[in-house]
Amino acid sequence: MNVLLVFAHPEPQSFNGALLRTAVAALEAAGHTVQLSDLYAQSFEPVSDRRNFTAAHDAAYFKQQAEELYATKHQGFAGDIEAELQKLAWCDVMIWQFPLWWFSVPAVLKGWVDRVFAMGRAYGSGHIYETGFFRGKRALLSLTTGGPAGAYQPGGLQGDVAGILRPIHRGMLQFTGFTVLAPHVVYGPARQSDEEREAVLAAWAARLIDLAHEAPFEVGTY
Amino acid sequence: MNVLLVFAHPEPQSFNGALLRTAVAALEAAGHTVQLSDLYAQSFEPVSDRRNFTAAHDAAYFKQQAEELYATKHQGFAGDIEAELQKLAWCDVMIWQFPLWWFSVPAVLKGWVDRVFAMGRAYGSGHIYETGFFRGKRALLSLTTGGPAGAYQPGGLQGDVAGILRPIHRGMLQFTGFTVLAPHVVYGPARQSDEEREAVLAAWAARLIDLAHEAPFEVGTY
Repeated sequence: MNVLLVFAHPEPQSFNGALLRTAVAALEAAGHTVQLSDLYAQSFEPVSDRRNFTAAHDAAYFKQQAEELYATKHQGFAGDIEAELQKLAWCDVMIWQFPLWWFSVPAVLKGWVDRVFAMGRAYGSGHIYETGFFRGKRALLSLTTGGPAGAYQPGGLQGDVAGILRPIHRGMLQFTGFTVLAPHVVYGPARQSDEEREAVLAAWAARLIDLAHEAPFEVGTY
Repeated sequence: MNVLLVFAHPEPQSFNGALLRTAVAALEAAGHTVQLSDLYAQSFEPVSDRRNFTAAHDAAYFKQQAEELYATKHQGFAGDIEAELQKLAWCDVMIWQFPLWWFSVPAVLKGWVDRVFAMGRAYGSGHIYETGFFRGKRALLSLTTGGPAGAYQPGGLQGDVAGILRPIHRGMLQFTGFTVLAPHVVYGPARQSDEEREAVLAAWAARLIDLAHEAPFEVGTY
């Protein structure tokens, strides 16, 4: 498999960093090929505007989707976006490694979606959901939380993690055609012992070997 | 009332821009005081990292919450964050004006939350949800969608807009203590006639006069 890992954490020594390095090692040891988008290390720009493009279709009024369709026709995406689009086209599986911040992804990862999932290349012309451009590819959210598992159950302090993640699963991943796999959630690693963390990393490595044959996750609709 | 308007759209001439200008004019005409955070115009930085702070509590390992607690004690927030925190402390009502991108806010607005809603100033030490630091303040999402209203009903193509917005309502606004008002959603303004848009702007202006007495919105839990 070709696996794209997208990493969004400001501290490489964090437990998110350990999960990332574990994934790279486990996937490569199993014979898979990995590409990494390390958004903090790349200083990836998350703000979507005219810098997404090498030329302007309409210099007087900025309508992002119109510019994206023009850029799709004229190979007009900025280099940083084109590089990410190539990785998306290349991958069989995409994994996002991130800490859950404010019931969502860190802004740099949201901006990666805002800028890279461009009309004409990631969706559009009827290509959404079941007919999305990324159909046949699999996607998996690997995340950490601050709070313990009990807080993320239905009725818990924060509530059902599947509901919290649904806008990402449904509105970003399924919308563009990805088959969604069950999220891999590590609850409260800051409060775990070294032994617990080692076990968590080992479980993550074990899961990654055979993602091609996992049953899809029931994302649910609204 | 003191009203903080947070605006996140790359094109000032957009319908989001028209909604913003309508809000400023209507609120000021009704005698309210407005402060604006125009995130694109301010070139607001959305990536959360050491630039959030004027000093480092731990220069060897970046843990954002620990740095935030240290900055809370030592007045150590970067100027752009401190300015937004002052506006938050000042306001009675906060309104976010944005286009719904990928079932969420644009990255620049997500990053405003990631950086400004700091532990020690926006939450923490038991101050979450009903005991949040921003209790007594009201918050309202004003947004536009690409698709028509029917797509955002339960069972529609995109699904119930209340579910799509719940992570924002619950995880960002209620979490920090805000009382949430009903979202103001304009569906598919790109497909509306000039007359329809004028009516939409008039309705928005009319709603803004008396936000202090609106009943809270039923956000729901997970």
